[in-house]
Amino acid sequence: MGRFQPPRGTRDFMPDDMVRREYIFGKVRSVFERFGFRPMETPAFESWDLLGAKGGGGDAIKDEIYLFRDKGKRQMGLRFVLTVPASRVVATNPQLPKPFKRYQIGRVWRYDKPQAGRFREFWQSDIDVFGSSGMEAEAECIATLVAAIESLGFKGFEVRLNNRKILNGMVRAAGVNKGKSEDVFRSLDKIEKQGESKVRKELCLVGIDDSSIDKLMRMIGISGKPAEALASARRELGKDKEAAEGINELEDVVSLSKAYGVRNIVIDFGLVRGLDYYTGPIYEIKAKTKTSVGSIAGGGRYDKLIELYGGPPTPATGGSIGVERVYEILCAEGMLDLPSTATRVFIAMVGDNPEVKRNAIQLSQKLRAMGVAVETDLMDRKLKQCFEYAEKAGIPYMIIMGEKEMKEGRLVLKDLKKREQKRLTVSGVIKELK
Amino acid sequence: MGRFQPPRGTRDFMPDDMVRREYIFGKVRSVFERFGFRPMETPAFESWDLLGAKGGGGDAIKDEIYLFRDKGKRQMGLRFVLTVPASRVVATNPQLPKPFKRYQIGRVWRYDKPQAGRFREFWQSDIDVFGSSGMEAEAECIATLVAAIESLGFKGFEVRLNNRKILNGMVRAAGVNKGKSEDVFRSLDKIEKQGESKVRKELCLVGIDDSSIDKLMRMIGISGKPAEALASARRELGKDKEAAEGINELEDVVSLSKAYGVRNIVIDFGLVRGLDYYTGPIYEIKAKTKTSVGSIAGGGRYDKLIELYGGPPTPATGGSIGVERVYEILCAEGMLDLPSTATRVFIAMVGDNPEVKRNAIQLSQKLRAMGVAVETDLMDRKLKQCFEYAEKAGIPYMIIMGEKEMKEGRLVLKDLKKREQKRLTVSGVIKELK
Repeated sequence: MGRFQPPRGTRDFMPDDMVRREYIFGKVRSVFERFGFRPMETPAFESWDLLGAKGGGGDAIKDEIYLFRDKGKRQMGLRFVLTVPASRVVATNPQLPKPFKRYQIGRVWRYDKPQAGRFREFWQSDIDVFGSSGMEAEAECIATLVAAIESLGFKGFEVRLNNRKILNGMVRAAGVNKGKSEDVFRSLDKIEKQGESKVRKELCLVGIDDSSIDKLMRMIGISGKPAEALASARRELGKDKEAAEGINELEDVVSLSKAYGVRNIVIDFGLVRGLDYYTGPIYEIKAKTKTSVGSIAGGGRYDKLIELYGGPPTPATGGSIGVERVYEILCAEGMLDLPSTATRVFIAMVGDNPEVKRNAIQLSQKLRAMGVAVETDLMDRKLKQCFEYAEKAGIPYMIIMGEKEMKEGRLVLKDLKKREQKRLTVSGVIKELK
Repeated sequence: MGRFQPPRGTRDFMPDDMVRREYIFGKVRSVFERFGFRPMETPAFESWDLLGAKGGGGDAIKDEIYLFRDKGKRQMGLRFVLTVPASRVVATNPQLPKPFKRYQIGRVWRYDKPQAGRFREFWQSDIDVFGSSGMEAEAECIATLVAAIESLGFKGFEVRLNNRKILNGMVRAAGVNKGKSEDVFRSLDKIEKQGESKVRKELCLVGIDDSSIDKLMRMIGISGKPAEALASARRELGKDKEAAEGINELEDVVSLSKAYGVRNIVIDFGLVRGLDYYTGPIYEIKAKTKTSVGSIAGGGRYDKLIELYGGPPTPATGGSIGVERVYEILCAEGMLDLPSTATRVFIAMVGDNPEVKRNAIQLSQKLRAMGVAVETDLMDRKLKQCFEYAEKAGIPYMIIMGEKEMKEGRLVLKDLKKREQKRLTVSGVIKELK
């Protein structure tokens, strides 16, 4: 062990790891582009004013932001989510043609308690549609996330759907003071993790009375197939104008999602999603796998954020894939059985003749020119060590070159898996490896 | 303009930009893998102890590091280079099989004065070989960087080569006090930008006397074809044991590079490279383009860094492509003429019939299943506006769908470049777009 370690809560991603992550990123990126999303990248840090703006990232996450002052004394913070910077971009570039559909795969930072499977630095993978107020945008984001997940080999999944407008209606119907609704949402969001009794206590502490809490608990318990759940919602909240609007929106989302071929939608009035900025439909996608039934993607509408950041009123909606969880599940279920290296062949040299070395290098360049990934020995090792290294590295072939091979114009090509070898000319080797 | 801007010295990378950057990253990555390098990623920030270690990142760059304390009061800094974190990884993982060859394409941060073409957040693209002390490793890194540059369309280039061992010999030969050699290197490094007289003044201020400065200036003036320049070096410095070793090393690098097909090597005893950690051969690659003859890649050997970070003695060498400069040159010379979107077709709907909308969505999904990137209208726009949007976005085709088209089972496919249109069945459209 060296004197230095990666900072607490962060990780080094070693090649075996990165090969798998790059595979995930590649699949996801290609699906995002098939749905017309385009790549965008924003700085790793933003002004604290932006990150901490009330109604934006908000209070739920303020304490988890990595803060620093730059040398000009400006207060900055590492981004904790990709949506906020993207919204800033849209706010400051009102000339962008709408819809502006962007994706971003990047890292975010949260000063959370490090624990199993939770890190302070982790990847997210986002899509967003700016400028469209129609429920087609929601349906498209859901379909895109589902397609991305499916492209990674996930088979069963369930989309849990709710609407902040319905939640607002519930809070009103339960007689909660308007100023306390964000507090209520933050508490309700914890119900799956902490259980009902803890959440009841928290709501009590915020000053919600028992009969309101009972009503809230009963309403968030409504869940199930869209037609039935939305009908109950209409009975309970149909007179609340905002809630009725939210119910209509969800009907549209469900019907349009069917056109996209997404059928596994469940209404779940207990779904909240922690961040303050949501204003309309919200959803989470749960994978049905052995390892976990947790959510691996989610999103929602946030129509006020662009304005909050100084831009013109701009409807916005988007979603995100939880790359870390996806990675964990795929590994645990053996769904990431990839070669750990792109290298196809290792060239070992026999003897100490500089002419042999030059010949080996020339051969490696010939193979590379044909698109074959090659490593030559850089350690002046004996054959046996070369052999061990290539096997450990998962390189499938090895070429052996010495004075004899040079003279005869024939090389030894070893297939390290089958443990067979052939004597071939250079063009024979090229043919075999292509 | 919104209230918020990206932090000073940083940029948002908009889709047109990112498409070009991703193209560059893709090309570079594929060359790196063809030479047997594997991907690795490290955290965005590291402990200040690591970043500021004397003999590592060092004094040259200390003032440019973005510093912050995390909530556990630990002093941290954003990485200013990729080599230092990679060396930490090798130091803390001595079990890694050697050679450990990794590449990394990522962003680094330097609190520099923002100026034309210089940013506080920028991309670098690194390769490194850990564990090999042979000059094959240098030759391979140079060949890899050259191949990566060529894969981007650069045609002429020149590799300028020197050795820190020779520079050490020169400083001794000039009678400079040993403790001052890092200061001397840092001053000499500025000669191209600031000119000789400024550098002379700076050396004077450090306490180097005039006759030493004269000797230094004469020696760093030696440059040219390897055979001749190395012969002069041998005459001047051959008696200095370390310098003689450096000269031998460069002879090896030149000869091995030839085997790799790299021929445009020039010896340049004025080349220093700013960072303190170099210990052996150093090089910079200059592109011969109209826009700039500046260096677009560089690297060198740093055999002491792993030990400095608490690892076992481990030889190391590596290089880096200056992604920002490469990007600028390619843009300026019109070498990045890429389609600005992957989307192949835009589907516009006529009228307000929800059945048409569902049909359009189903068609989009059919096309996506065939691998075609599709956008459907999410804004309920009229045909004319759809047409304008698709043209502006650079989407080559447009499909028009309305009640009439649904009934007849034939769609209008418009080629937006040729300004032609055809009436086709769905399978006809698929055939046309594939």
